[in-house]
Amino acid sequence: MNIIEQMDTFFNPKSVAVIGASRKIHKAGHVIFKNFADNKRRGILKAELYPVNPKEDYILGFKCYSSLLEIPGKIDLIVIVVPAEFVPEVMSQAVQKGVKAAVIISAGFSEIGNRELERQVVEIAKKAGIRVLGPNCLGVYDSYTGVDMLFLPETKILSTGDEMVATPRPMAGNISIVTQSGAFGASALDYLTGRQLGISKFVSFGNKCDVEEAEMLEYLLEDEKTEVILLYIEGIRDGRKFMESARKVTRIKPVIALKTGKTSAGARAAASHTGSIAGTDDVYEAAFMQCGVIRAKDMEEFFDLGKALAYQPPAKGNNIGIVTDAGGPGIMAADECEVRGLRVKRFSDDTIRKFEDLKSQGKIPKIATNLNPVDLSGLATSEMFEEAVKILVEDPEIDGIIVLGLHHLPALMEDFVDRIANLVKDYPKPIVACDIGETEMAMFIRSRFDKFGIPAYGSPEDAARAMSALVRYGKYLIKCKCYDEYMENFMKRKGVK
Amino acid sequence: MNIIEQMDTFFNPKSVAVIGASRKIHKAGHVIFKNFADNKRRGILKAELYPVNPKEDYILGFKCYSSLLEIPGKIDLIVIVVPAEFVPEVMSQAVQKGVKAAVIISAGFSEIGNRELERQVVEIAKKAGIRVLGPNCLGVYDSYTGVDMLFLPETKILSTGDEMVATPRPMAGNISIVTQSGAFGASALDYLTGRQLGISKFVSFGNKCDVEEAEMLEYLLEDEKTEVILLYIEGIRDGRKFMESARKVTRIKPVIALKTGKTSAGARAAASHTGSIAGTDDVYEAAFMQCGVIRAKDMEEFFDLGKALAYQPPAKGNNIGIVTDAGGPGIMAADECEVRGLRVKRFSDDTIRKFEDLKSQGKIPKIATNLNPVDLSGLATSEMFEEAVKILVEDPEIDGIIVLGLHHLPALMEDFVDRIANLVKDYPKPIVACDIGETEMAMFIRSRFDKFGIPAYGSPEDAARAMSALVRYGKYLIKCKCYDEYMENFMKRKGVK
Repeated sequence: MNIIEQMDTFFNPKSVAVIGASRKIHKAGHVIFKNFADNKRRGILKAELYPVNPKEDYILGFKCYSSLLEIPGKIDLIVIVVPAEFVPEVMSQAVQKGVKAAVIISAGFSEIGNRELERQVVEIAKKAGIRVLGPNCLGVYDSYTGVDMLFLPETKILSTGDEMVATPRPMAGNISIVTQSGAFGASALDYLTGRQLGISKFVSFGNKCDVEEAEMLEYLLEDEKTEVILLYIEGIRDGRKFMESARKVTRIKPVIALKTGKTSAGARAAASHTGSIAGTDDVYEAAFMQCGVIRAKDMEEFFDLGKALAYQPPAKGNNIGIVTDAGGPGIMAADECEVRGLRVKRFSDDTIRKFEDLKSQGKIPKIATNLNPVDLSGLATSEMFEEAVKILVEDPEIDGIIVLGLHHLPALMEDFVDRIANLVKDYPKPIVACDIGETEMAMFIRSRFDKFGIPAYGSPEDAARAMSALVRYGKYLIKCKCYDEYMENFMKRKGVK
Repeated sequence: MNIIEQMDTFFNPKSVAVIGASRKIHKAGHVIFKNFADNKRRGILKAELYPVNPKEDYILGFKCYSSLLEIPGKIDLIVIVVPAEFVPEVMSQAVQKGVKAAVIISAGFSEIGNRELERQVVEIAKKAGIRVLGPNCLGVYDSYTGVDMLFLPETKILSTGDEMVATPRPMAGNISIVTQSGAFGASALDYLTGRQLGISKFVSFGNKCDVEEAEMLEYLLEDEKTEVILLYIEGIRDGRKFMESARKVTRIKPVIALKTGKTSAGARAAASHTGSIAGTDDVYEAAFMQCGVIRAKDMEEFFDLGKALAYQPPAKGNNIGIVTDAGGPGIMAADECEVRGLRVKRFSDDTIRKFEDLKSQGKIPKIATNLNPVDLSGLATSEMFEEAVKILVEDPEIDGIIVLGLHHLPALMEDFVDRIANLVKDYPKPIVACDIGETEMAMFIRSRFDKFGIPAYGSPEDAARAMSALVRYGKYLIKCKCYDEYMENFMKRKGVK
């Protein structure tokens, strides 16, 4: 088996056994087995499914086996939820059974000093060629195959008896998440669900006793359902290997990294969290730059950039045009663009003339400013937004467009979103949007933009940062001479003729 | 009349006339008069209210006057919504009538080059001592007195016939907003409403032909209902005057500024927006520092810091303790603290011993880390959070506490919020919280913290930034030797004995 096939077993096994499956609702072994059983019943999980627990005959209607060895058929993947001290024995049985891959959810290994136990497990697995994820991890979630090892409850019951959504699974989509921190992974799923961003694969490494980032990246490169990779990192063991894999991937798919432990306090925290040596931050920064990994400055940017790259093509250059109906937010966007190394330069005379023509035709207000940003003023209508964006879409000097359509103004109707989306859909020029506000209509406008594949943000600066990632990635692809190929694939994926 | 009395007329007039009130629902003169009329009917607005429009007999049940001069009683405040060219005549009548203050909502003055018209208006007003807000502005909103000049519709009707909340008014609270940009002001109201942050006063200046920031600051200093001031600035005309006022205010109430136009593109945009000379950003930066104004780096931080300072006391020093149930987010918070100049140092031996004691008593997990951050691990319960926070509340070395309580973990119940709130309520030590996620339970946990006056944020970095503002402000107050006085007032306001 090559690495791709090995990794595929974690996400797409033909048969899976849950070692430590349970009927007790509060046990991880119950939650995990139930995830699989539910997905099997719904027809999402195609794999054969077996619970293993010597104390039970049936779990959720599935015949239960007292050990792995008793299961009649072949087993591709095992998910281990038994206490740490029993794991070596389970692994030995896995060797006998010809298991290909194991996910060790159980904690109690090197993270609390039990290095010898972890070493034993690795030794058994290595000899037999079994690939191991974990231990001490959340494991895998695949929205397409129905593999779901998350033992965090999807809902929680409050003391009032109310049930609440707690750790939801996002819908199927094109983002994959690779995370060293399980708890952060769970919150990422929560965040992406709420923002209606779909994911393909989720994998949490925990102690990383065997499989780590590099192999996972190579696998996701081949995964058709993955178009953008989000990578949460505290420390990388084999930097050379990581860079080699990352370099291959970033030519085809954007990789966004959130690397924490960048300060001395953060590094100390990382060391006691996953035992990671955070290393000098400069080294990581330089490595990411070299291999085209886009680094996010913080958590929110991490998700914001993911959304931008999942929806929009990279930019060919760094000249940005801004269209707004609100002066202040226009300034904020222009400021943040320049801070991030983008240019918001005065439009060409030709473009300015086009705007002046619109004014004399009464198609945009006389008081609109048109040097860049274009400020349509408080009189803005949907038609005016359409006219203004059209000019910038066609302007060969403009590489990316930021639309700030604040819905508060009286004459602006919600169809400005549709008009803009219709206008830009066949152009290979990136566009991002912003509406400010946290009540009904702001959310409606942002989600309408999102649905058309125009990523929308809640602040002008967030929109500018998203655009800056599209520019950074475009620059990298051009440097690598693979911009055209990326664009061809991108436009094909988005269904543009 | 002193300046305070003059400014008070804008927010708390005894009588108000709307010049250009209308029955036509799409006109600004209708929306504004209706705001006043509604608030009058609800008993919120105590002022006498008069519509002025020569073409109508009654508007919304109020007798309409053909001119200001015909109104029988005295008039404190006029709100002018007639076209620009009629404004000088209205102002002349205002002089005759003895009006104290005028808000000119109407556009069409210096912002489109009509400087002479604006000069005329100012001249008339100055001679008679009438104070003027605007022109070209949104005017004033006061959640306590019912003065509401916002002509942006609270709801909008979509093409489907659906009605949606568009520009809501926040509930009554202790934050006041002073903004040069009207559209940004409207979106700020939308944002604060959605985040359930209450406001006292809102004022949008527009062209600032007369009243500007300095006087407004002096007024808000005296306003009992204002505890925190949010200031959106594109350019300040009289820097010396601003600094003089700001210095007086910041000793008593925090002022948070969002100053845009900091890059050359931003400055160009600002110049064509409100005609502001943005000036060198370094000059503003230094001025803010000197007079204790806390500058926010972007829009989101602007609101986040406002919330922190509205809810929590400033910190006495920069040593921060972090308690988390999720390693990764703990590292993010530690990183951001250090980036912002805070310290997340190893706890004292004494404090570490207290945590070890808890471990040996089985009160927190053996695998918890306790150097700072405290990571209670995935086994965290509400009781453990309470125990850990208690130690830090009592630790004299720790000046502020960040609680990262990710709700995803199975054993953590929602009552950890109540326990922490109960624990910290009488301590003059700031605390901020974070839960990550954008679905039901994350929002519930954050809003529960908020309700207890512990500001909660959606990312660890946002929480750290909020704490950094509490530290910066504390440092400034200590430097000015007014920390103790501030704290005394603060604790009194919050009802702490």
